[in-house]
Amino acid sequence: MGESEPTGKNPFHAYLIEPQLQEQRQLYFELMLDVNDAHTLMLHAREILSPQEARQLLQVSQELRERGAAALLLIPEREDLYLNMEAHLIDRLGERVGGRLHMGRSRNDLYATMQRMKCRAELLRVAQLLLDLRGVILGTAESGLETVIPGYTHMQPAQPITYGHYLAGVAHAFARDSARLMAAYARINLSPLGAGALAGTGFPIDRSLVAAYLGFDGVLTNSLDAVASRDYVAEMLGAMALTLSTLSRMNQDFYFWVTSEFSLLVLPEEFVAGSSIMPQKRNPILFEHLSAKVAHVLGAYVSVLTTLKGTPYTHSRVSAGEVFVLPWKAVAEAETALRLVTAILPKLQINRTVALANAATNFSTVTELADELVRKMGISFRSAHEIVKHAVHRLHHRGQTCQALTLPLLNEAATKVLGKPLEGIDEEDLRQALDPLENVRRRNVVGGPAPQDVAVRLQELHRQLEADRRELDVRCERLRAASARLADAIRALIL
Amino acid sequence: MGESEPTGKNPFHAYLIEPQLQEQRQLYFELMLDVNDAHTLMLHAREILSPQEARQLLQVSQELRERGAAALLLIPEREDLYLNMEAHLIDRLGERVGGRLHMGRSRNDLYATMQRMKCRAELLRVAQLLLDLRGVILGTAESGLETVIPGYTHMQPAQPITYGHYLAGVAHAFARDSARLMAAYARINLSPLGAGALAGTGFPIDRSLVAAYLGFDGVLTNSLDAVASRDYVAEMLGAMALTLSTLSRMNQDFYFWVTSEFSLLVLPEEFVAGSSIMPQKRNPILFEHLSAKVAHVLGAYVSVLTTLKGTPYTHSRVSAGEVFVLPWKAVAEAETALRLVTAILPKLQINRTVALANAATNFSTVTELADELVRKMGISFRSAHEIVKHAVHRLHHRGQTCQALTLPLLNEAATKVLGKPLEGIDEEDLRQALDPLENVRRRNVVGGPAPQDVAVRLQELHRQLEADRRELDVRCERLRAASARLADAIRALIL
Amino acid sequence: MGESEPTGKNPFHAYLIEPQLQEQRQLYFELMLDVNDAHTLMLHAREILSPQEARQLLQVSQELRERGAAALLLIPEREDLYLNMEAHLIDRLGERVGGRLHMGRSRNDLYATMQRMKCRAELLRVAQLLLDLRGVILGTAESGLETVIPGYTHMQPAQPITYGHYLAGVAHAFARDSARLMAAYARINLSPLGAGALAGTGFPIDRSLVAAYLGFDGVLTNSLDAVASRDYVAEMLGAMALTLSTLSRMNQDFYFWVTSEFSLLVLPEEFVAGSSIMPQKRNPILFEHLSAKVAHVLGAYVSVLTTLKGTPYTHSRVSAGEVFVLPWKAVAEAETALRLVTAILPKLQINRTVALANAATNFSTVTELADELVRKMGISFRSAHEIVKHAVHRLHHRGQTCQALTLPLLNEAATKVLGKPLEGIDEEDLRQALDPLENVRRRNVVGGPAPQDVAVRLQELHRQLEADRRELDVRCERLRAASARLADAIRALIL
Amino acid sequence: MGESEPTGKNPFHAYLIEPQLQEQRQLYFELMLDVNDAHTLMLHAREILSPQEARQLLQVSQELRERGAAALLLIPEREDLYLNMEAHLIDRLGERVGGRLHMGRSRNDLYATMQRMKCRAELLRVAQLLLDLRGVILGTAESGLETVIPGYTHMQPAQPITYGHYLAGVAHAFARDSARLMAAYARINLSPLGAGALAGTGFPIDRSLVAAYLGFDGVLTNSLDAVASRDYVAEMLGAMALTLSTLSRMNQDFYFWVTSEFSLLVLPEEFVAGSSIMPQKRNPILFEHLSAKVAHVLGAYVSVLTTLKGTPYTHSRVSAGEVFVLPWKAVAEAETALRLVTAILPKLQINRTVALANAATNFSTVTELADELVRKMGISFRSAHEIVKHAVHRLHHRGQTCQALTLPLLNEAATKVLGKPLEGIDEEDLRQALDPLENVRRRNVVGGPAPQDVAVRLQELHRQLEADRRELDVRCERLRAASARLADAIRALIL
Repeated sequence: MGESEPTGKNPFHAYLIEPQLQEQRQLYFELMLDVNDAHTLMLHAREILSPQEARQLLQVSQELRERGAAALLLIPEREDLYLNMEAHLIDRLGERVGGRLHMGRSRNDLYATMQRMKCRAELLRVAQLLLDLRGVILGTAESGLETVIPGYTHMQPAQPITYGHYLAGVAHAFARDSARLMAAYARINLSPLGAGALAGTGFPIDRSLVAAYLGFDGVLTNSLDAVASRDYVAEMLGAMALTLSTLSRMNQDFYFWVTSEFSLLVLPEEFVAGSSIMPQKRNPILFEHLSAKVAHVLGAYVSVLTTLKGTPYTHSRVSAGEVFVLPWKAVAEAETALRLVTAILPKLQINRTVALANAATNFSTVTELADELVRKMGISFRSAHEIVKHAVHRLHHRGQTCQALTLPLLNEAATKVLGKPLEGIDEEDLRQALDPLENVRRRNVVGGPAPQDVAVRLQELHRQLEADRRELDVRCERLRAASARLADAIRALIL
Repeated sequence: MGESEPTGKNPFHAYLIEPQLQEQRQLYFELMLDVNDAHTLMLHAREILSPQEARQLLQVSQELRERGAAALLLIPEREDLYLNMEAHLIDRLGERVGGRLHMGRSRNDLYATMQRMKCRAELLRVAQLLLDLRGVILGTAESGLETVIPGYTHMQPAQPITYGHYLAGVAHAFARDSARLMAAYARINLSPLGAGALAGTGFPIDRSLVAAYLGFDGVLTNSLDAVASRDYVAEMLGAMALTLSTLSRMNQDFYFWVTSEFSLLVLPEEFVAGSSIMPQKRNPILFEHLSAKVAHVLGAYVSVLTTLKGTPYTHSRVSAGEVFVLPWKAVAEAETALRLVTAILPKLQINRTVALANAATNFSTVTELADELVRKMGISFRSAHEIVKHAVHRLHHRGQTCQALTLPLLNEAATKVLGKPLEGIDEEDLRQALDPLENVRRRNVVGGPAPQDVAVRLQELHRQLEADRRELDVRCERLRAASARLADAIRALIL
Repeated sequence: MGESEPTGKNPFHAYLIEPQLQEQRQLYFELMLDVNDAHTLMLHAREILSPQEARQLLQVSQELRERGAAALLLIPEREDLYLNMEAHLIDRLGERVGGRLHMGRSRNDLYATMQRMKCRAELLRVAQLLLDLRGVILGTAESGLETVIPGYTHMQPAQPITYGHYLAGVAHAFARDSARLMAAYARINLSPLGAGALAGTGFPIDRSLVAAYLGFDGVLTNSLDAVASRDYVAEMLGAMALTLSTLSRMNQDFYFWVTSEFSLLVLPEEFVAGSSIMPQKRNPILFEHLSAKVAHVLGAYVSVLTTLKGTPYTHSRVSAGEVFVLPWKAVAEAETALRLVTAILPKLQINRTVALANAATNFSTVTELADELVRKMGISFRSAHEIVKHAVHRLHHRGQTCQALTLPLLNEAATKVLGKPLEGIDEEDLRQALDPLENVRRRNVVGGPAPQDVAVRLQELHRQLEADRRELDVRCERLRAASARLADAIRALIL
Repeated sequence: MGESEPTGKNPFHAYLIEPQLQEQRQLYFELMLDVNDAHTLMLHAREILSPQEARQLLQVSQELRERGAAALLLIPEREDLYLNMEAHLIDRLGERVGGRLHMGRSRNDLYATMQRMKCRAELLRVAQLLLDLRGVILGTAESGLETVIPGYTHMQPAQPITYGHYLAGVAHAFARDSARLMAAYARINLSPLGAGALAGTGFPIDRSLVAAYLGFDGVLTNSLDAVASRDYVAEMLGAMALTLSTLSRMNQDFYFWVTSEFSLLVLPEEFVAGSSIMPQKRNPILFEHLSAKVAHVLGAYVSVLTTLKGTPYTHSRVSAGEVFVLPWKAVAEAETALRLVTAILPKLQINRTVALANAATNFSTVTELADELVRKMGISFRSAHEIVKHAVHRLHHRGQTCQALTLPLLNEAATKVLGKPLEGIDEEDLRQALDPLENVRRRNVVGGPAPQDVAVRLQELHRQLEADRRELDVRCERLRAASARLADAIRALIL
């Protein structure tokens, strides 16, 4: 082998067990103590453990909690964190007591339980950050109700909208992302504990009691399903991937808008990166990072589903181990992305002058002109569209902007299309039809960019956000309350 | 270029527009007529179209429906199916009337609407097939409540379970998959129509009325979000990927169980493939296909999210076109997989004799023996585990099965571990502890394999299935009712 | 089930075998006749078949070829295309002769062979299209050697380059893509035939002779590897994914450059799409499609590797069937993308006036100014950078362009940074340093944008392209020659 | 926000710049010193730096190298590792000298260079591990030339092969994986340095000299391509994904073979994991981990290609930063997998008695019997296949093994199929045809399982491995030599 290795070292330990032990200690030490304590309390409640035995187990657990993860000796021959922790219990309390903790469960349901606890914590953090972002977006949108910007399709000026309307659109997408995250939570927060290795147990345990101590909303019933299922990991990552997909698309818009060519958006100095050699550079690297983050969550999603493919529906190291190789990194990327965009968004400034001037000159208002012809002249939309198109093409070839669009030009076009000039349209009609803000105001259909309607939608979005906040608060509060109940019960028994 | 091409052919038409036209005709012809009719009725209701105009438009629409998609002339210069259809209307009714249909909408919201209609139909079909599969699983599980099979972890015999318990476990997973599918449906079935190109419209349209005619549960409000959002495609594929992941794992188990080495499951002759040269072959190719199908849905999922990455949050051909390149194929794979497994599952037969014999001999019952030692002797679980382990290793080295596990052997092991022989355990205790069916019966914890508990869970699963069926029926019924209302309204105006 | 099905129809046939038969007929009918003929000739050469038997088999094969795929009766009970074709042979020639064709092989190596033949044909077509594209890029680059455009990093103006330099950069990337494709070809074009089911055969066959008749470069030796390996599918898709990744990035640049805001590139009218409602629209939808295509090839790649994951290293329907569900579609997408971009690229026109003016005003030349200060004044690069940065920031805050950068302003900055004004720099030095074309000319380092160097690189790229063309031509010619030899040998025996 | 944050902390620094600084220090500190030194030497050789300046820069560089990465002060306002390092140089040497190092380059080409150096080191490590594995496989295969095992297709016994033949098959696949890795290396090991920000430099640098000092095989010419291209990351991961795909499939075979049901393979005790509750458990968790590892490399591959999709072809934080979020983790997984399987493989023992007995009884030899009928009786293969099939089905229904296959039974079958009994076949022919080892010996076709042929192939594989080793050694030696030259040149100038 290329590199020498410690002679006599078992490679199974060196490359598999030891790295896993380190990782388990870091990820699961605290959670394992919680699960152990809850399990101990339940065994005591069901009189499977005597009060004395329960008390001793809880006391050593408390000691371990206080001394911290680093204090626990890890020996690879003991395979995993649990058997090392049990060895510590036996060392302290004798096998007679220390060897009793594991009754009515196995490592399979133990790790399945901790993995769900870890996932729910990560998910709640991301869900909270997403609510924060939605709040920031709504606040920013409110102040942009009349901030006209050119609306684009295919990166070409299409019709004027407002910044508030744009942000409201994105806020709807993020609201759906929140809903998906919370739906995933409901399927995560069920307790596998009591499923044993895969077949439950013959001891008269109380699965609901343990679940309650650990803040679960209930029990994941079937014992095989409890140790086999990891669908929730993919569901969580899927919800996060979609969240970052929305975020990617919004940031890509910002990325275009801050270019000197578009100049629609101003990025504050404190978020700009320079160049080591180009003195003029003000690089919006933030948007590059943010736009790409979805890729890593997608990568982790692929890893999870590919890992699970063709795996027996039961416990294995595939479902219990390999599934988790990439997800935590992906979740961390999601967190970073949400924190960054939430921090930057309220500080982005629309360059109102440029935005309005562009909307007025770049022909984005001519659809409204065609609509006006329909309304005033009773001609078909297709005919009106043709007339305006003629006129616009003429200006395009002359290199002129929309502001050169006059009644005579339109009459000329109308004569070509209809065989007669316009009727019932005057200069004021034309001016109004081509005014960007008037454009926006007229589009007062449900969901349209009219400030009046956007204001209504923002109220709806706010109400939805408040409801989502309440739901999340309830979830968090339940976990806190369960944690407090567990601590109380431990104290009550120890003291 | 390698192949000659029609001289003078515009490659933009040859490689992009023409194939798209063909595809649009195949996928959207019927849907477009429905949307056109609903839009016409709404324009009429809002007096944007006169009764006469509406009638004429509806009549030509009916003609087209009767003559079928193939009858519509498709000219690439008209870019897409809609402008070809409009050209037909204008050809038949003159531009004065034919050119009026498109008022208050654009192709962007039109296609966004049809894509959601297509998606909901596909999703409902898959959801229905999944309910059928769940029904078949529950039916099979009921007859397998006492069919003992060895439960495996890591492909090694672990503890006895029953076939009913196994299938109940999988049924739980599929129930979650159903829930995810229906949650996706709720986010799909909202109408983008009225969003126009991206900025709504100035015409006084009624978005809710069109939505109702087309069977949508409501309006997708923000007009930018309405044309930009395709998150629902990924959500739908994600739900299907998880469904096929569950299906992959179950079929992989079957794949192992039908090997001559395991011999736990018998595959009926009609599902077996032979060999062109090996006379003895009975190949379970079905399970190979089924176990792999998740890969294609995952591939489509990756395609969708990668396509959307970094795309402006607005309408473009990325969101409106490229997103849909792989999904329909993936959905078809999901359908095939569900149909196949639903057909085969009730015909698979557990080889009860082999299964029971294996469970009795392969040491999968010895955990229960350890538990019994704990209960009878009051020793710790760890000590009991050690005693049994000693005895089992002895047999293992002798090449003997679990049936050679005797009291003397256990006493010998106990003496080694505890320094004294067993107490309070007799031959009958031993026999009972090692009996697979007794094992299963004793594990009467919530979610465990005991027939009594599995029966309770199957009742719960049945109730859940019935509730899901009702929900799906309601969804389907709403679509049928809307379709009938639309047809009635057309007829009322035409006649 | 939701939909009624033909009563009594075996679902194994309906959902699996029949669709596969249709697909096999479409994909493999011609190839199977070729493989059969080559195998027949070899069996004859090794005297395993008599001349009379070989002649009869070849004659029926010729008949089938002439009558076409549609003429072959397909019965699902016969499982696959081969056994249906053999049934036809037996029907025509009796089992005594028709039943002899399959000696010394099996369906496993037969399909493995055809799949490699299909893959090599697809790969060669894509490789040819990529060479065509590279040719077009080089031709266009040559005429753009002095066409200055602003070079961007982070979407911000960085330093002037030329369109020729840009295209040369992309051409290098595509050259690597070609190399990867051809490397994949070498691993594809080896014959599995003779591997039998997995263990070769006891008949004294000549694997090399069959391989030669079928245009393979050699034999894929190990018989297990021959039926198990599908790594080449992923390798081929990987090479195509990278090709489309390069293509995606180039088209994304074009997509930005054609915006009215950038106005660097003009898209000819014939490639522009309009809007059904916005009269001014000139949508560059082409670039949207092209930029997204990589996603589908990536999706297929994921499908292939996920399918193979955890599959036994032998023949199965996973490797022989499921692997191929998405690849052909992905390859078709790659083909379309390459054809489109090759057609459009020579027709794109840089807007030279705008491009040059932007490069002159957008500060992209100021790095050269800093370099000039280093050269002329002997100060460190960091100091020069600081001086220029000061001056640029001043202009930036004043809202002025680079053309307002004067010696007095620089002196002011120098005094701030160095405590003294510039020395040895005159107006002409300043003017030259800030001139975009002069900037480009000075960067005459290997690989830099100086027209002189780019011209050298284009010659290298041309030579590489010619070498690649020759390699591809040799590959294609070998296939044609083998095909001719096969036809000759058939004719020689039949006549 | 959920968690409080340091008041007034710039989130751009907190969430983006600071974590990146930490990561850059860890990954690139040493590499940056090397690149700086090589660049300094080149600037000196081209007389852009004076000997004195070069000496000073090299001295501080040496100091930094000795003091280690931790000693370097990192300030987020300086954005990245390089500007922090430059600040250190300026602090030590004054801006006059410290500010000169960066002449003729930028951070863009600097990081592009270091990323390729990092990649090549990772790739070489993996390539070396793969060669080690191939060596171990070949060694094991040699001792298994006559170790008969049942060959499977579709997990059903197909035909006997040998363990040596199986391993040789896998060795061929791994040899292709090595070739792909080394092909990727050739495209990685080219120097971007001198590309500057994207447009080269006006300083008269010598790109080849720097490249040579840093061990590159040449210069990546086009300066835009040099900073934009990251295709090599995907190519490297693609080669590793295929390596782990081969590894996944081989380990999945082992996973089946060690089950008590198959009992073909014995896993040594030291690689077995136990259970915390099931005393009998000997879990082959190793194979579960190994079979899954491909998923993570695939996930990273998806992340890379999705990240790059739609990114401008130039430098950005997408290509320079986000691309590298998952790859190093994925490469580490590949390393672990290769180390583990290389350690375990030579210790796996085929259970020869069971393997041979299975091959003799499970009907895997009956294809040879059919072939024998063809040879001895001159009947068609299809007829022979039918006769044997009849006989085998009879035994199958009687529940008998292949050892009950007698001449009378065959005669009965022959009479059914041909209307007459067998001719020219005696008991000894039958016995020989059904003997597994004889089966294997007869299949002496190129690539077949006959020990004689496998021995030849193993020689070829050995020669290939030796050639690959030499190539890798040359690569490594070149890097070491370049490193020595760089150190010598530094020393020569400093002293």
